[in-house]
Amino acid sequence: MPNILHIVATDGEARAGLLRTHHGDVPTPAFMPVATQGSVKAVDPFDLKGLGATILLANTYHLYLRPGIEVIRRQGGLHSFMSWDGPILTDSGGFQGYSLEHLRQIGEEGITFKSHIDGSVHLLTPEAAIDYQESLGVDIAMALDVCPPYGGGKADLDESMQITHRWAIRCLERHTNKKQALFGIIQGGSFADLRAESAEFLTSLDFPGYAIGGLSVGEPKEMMYRMAQFTTGLLPNGKPRYLMGVGSPEDLVECVARGIDLFDCALPTRIARNSALFVHTGRLNIDTAPYREQEGPIEEGCDCFTCQHFSAAYLHHLFRARELLAYRLATIHNLRFVIRLMEEMREAIFCGAFEEYRQRFHKRFIPPDETVRIIQKEKWLEAQGRPRPARPP
Amino acid sequence: MPNILHIVATDGEARAGLLRTHHGDVPTPAFMPVATQGSVKAVDPFDLKGLGATILLANTYHLYLRPGIEVIRRQGGLHSFMSWDGPILTDSGGFQGYSLEHLRQIGEEGITFKSHIDGSVHLLTPEAAIDYQESLGVDIAMALDVCPPYGGGKADLDESMQITHRWAIRCLERHTNKKQALFGIIQGGSFADLRAESAEFLTSLDFPGYAIGGLSVGEPKEMMYRMAQFTTGLLPNGKPRYLMGVGSPEDLVECVARGIDLFDCALPTRIARNSALFVHTGRLNIDTAPYREQEGPIEEGCDCFTCQHFSAAYLHHLFRARELLAYRLATIHNLRFVIRLMEEMREAIFCGAFEEYRQRFHKRFIPPDETVRIIQKEKWLEAQGRPRPARPP
Repeated sequence: MPNILHIVATDGEARAGLLRTHHGDVPTPAFMPVATQGSVKAVDPFDLKGLGATILLANTYHLYLRPGIEVIRRQGGLHSFMSWDGPILTDSGGFQGYSLEHLRQIGEEGITFKSHIDGSVHLLTPEAAIDYQESLGVDIAMALDVCPPYGGGKADLDESMQITHRWAIRCLERHTNKKQALFGIIQGGSFADLRAESAEFLTSLDFPGYAIGGLSVGEPKEMMYRMAQFTTGLLPNGKPRYLMGVGSPEDLVECVARGIDLFDCALPTRIARNSALFVHTGRLNIDTAPYREQEGPIEEGCDCFTCQHFSAAYLHHLFRARELLAYRLATIHNLRFVIRLMEEMREAIFCGAFEEYRQRFHKRFIPPDETVRIIQKEKWLEAQGRPRPARPP
Repeated sequence: MPNILHIVATDGEARAGLLRTHHGDVPTPAFMPVATQGSVKAVDPFDLKGLGATILLANTYHLYLRPGIEVIRRQGGLHSFMSWDGPILTDSGGFQGYSLEHLRQIGEEGITFKSHIDGSVHLLTPEAAIDYQESLGVDIAMALDVCPPYGGGKADLDESMQITHRWAIRCLERHTNKKQALFGIIQGGSFADLRAESAEFLTSLDFPGYAIGGLSVGEPKEMMYRMAQFTTGLLPNGKPRYLMGVGSPEDLVECVARGIDLFDCALPTRIARNSALFVHTGRLNIDTAPYREQEGPIEEGCDCFTCQHFSAAYLHHLFRARELLAYRLATIHNLRFVIRLMEEMREAIFCGAFEEYRQRFHKRFIPPDETVRIIQKEKWLEAQGRPRPARPP
């Protein structure tokens, strides 16, 4: 497979490029909205085009359970099924080995899941993960990996990494679809020597792109940034680097600064449905009193569909009255916010002004306190009936 | 006020016309999507324009409770607040005297409600209903009425009607906005002599339009049709006739046949969110097995956004996976179905082919059995925490 990423400009470690896929080119750095079950929650593909999304992420394991891989294959593949003609990347299901930890067993053969839908039992092997992603017809497939939670011991992380490496070989051997790029996933937790070993091993297999997995799983932000930076330093320059499950606006800026090209995260869409909206100063909760009578949009100057057509007061009302339209309008705003952020960073990289952009961003954008952030995430996980992730020490 | 309805063609009792309002003309017969709280559930104003909606219905009492009439007035009125620049009609709150029966007391002065939101107590007088609708700036306001449930005795219905008449005078005396039409509401239940008295009294007050209230409140369909027909026969030809709370596709056809010009009903949007979709043969439940792999749209030839872009299998999946996009796509389909039905009837009236259209419609469209329909409605009311309506004897 020829190079799929063309680096067009760099500024420090930050890179601007073009990721070529069978369903079109993706200007990088890029943020992928999350369509776990084949739908970015609350919005449609035309909304996504309108707000500048260029590539989506879907999930092999979720789609395997429902509606079933064969159903989608018979409908002409995932693009056709969900009416999105742009690029799609699928996670293999490895992340569900983390997020559905209480419902799975990991063995050499693969991951055995107990379905969260009907309790049935399913073995996801590396070969199956590849077969499924080939049947879905997505542009970028991910190797099956073991993604351990933060806080495990080094021996456990090493073992998870070794399995990930053996599975990477099995995935490569199984993969035949020339229209689809298969990315390897670096593991190793927060241990630099494991990360180095993982990067060395996986780059020797010559994947067309690499993901950094096993981050954003409960560790402090500073550690995540450090590990992302350390790992990008070990990856080939000419290939795409995808940091899985990241992130918040401040994470996106910090990780573009560290040489990441691709991101995905459910945060912007999830908090939107919970009435938390991004503005240049941070997050606001639109359902609170200050917005009850705000005539102007959520943010002056925002070019999203929501801000172009609706007042903050109306959004406030929709959330208070539990109107379904609230979720779509809020989702559009937050996705446009992070995608515009990517566009602005790309522009800054081209202009050699990335560091300036980064400083200005941090001066204005105040993220929620990390403790608040972790508590909110725990509450959300609990509301989903999932166990709490390991707590940072 | 000059005539606001221009009848352009008739065919039997059916009429096609143009209803003139301060925010544009409405071709009649017309169906008004229901935006109780200032939002047609799950869709936005651009969706509504796209599917051919020409006039919306909102609710004074609900908007009074939340976000508050003054909030909307300060935002420039309801059109500006909800970003809908077409005509709006508001019900006065009289219907909540029926639907929130367990939370209200009716006296000569007005209706005293206990808020379903916070339990606070509010007196809605005819004068207040007018003031609120003037503040909302809607195109058509409704007089405050007493809307009794089906199954009451004649003496009770008579008394409700007499109060409605006295309130109609108070509403007229209070109403000053020349850009807004105020409609009177005929009551009298299913008693022809009461209906005749109500029509005679209210037409003597020379409202610019008349609604038929107190139907679709639990009575058998045949009785509703009979009463609608009897009442239209008593109303002036040159003024709009609005049958409140109707209806299903078969009701729309039967009541256009009886000379009704305007309709509103939550049914198409409510059942859409419950996965029931209209097709030319009746209703289907998109979340059931037959649609799991249906590659084509919900209905071949349907011109709605949903059918133009998404397969029945995808809709099926969205409902099964409880994806929010399901509600919007299903709502768009059902609203387009009933609005296209109105467009087709209008065309048939112009062509002198209404009776033929009506016969063809009934030959193909099989509504759910009436018993099933009533049980479904009761289940829904129970799920809303409301008491069951009076059962037909």
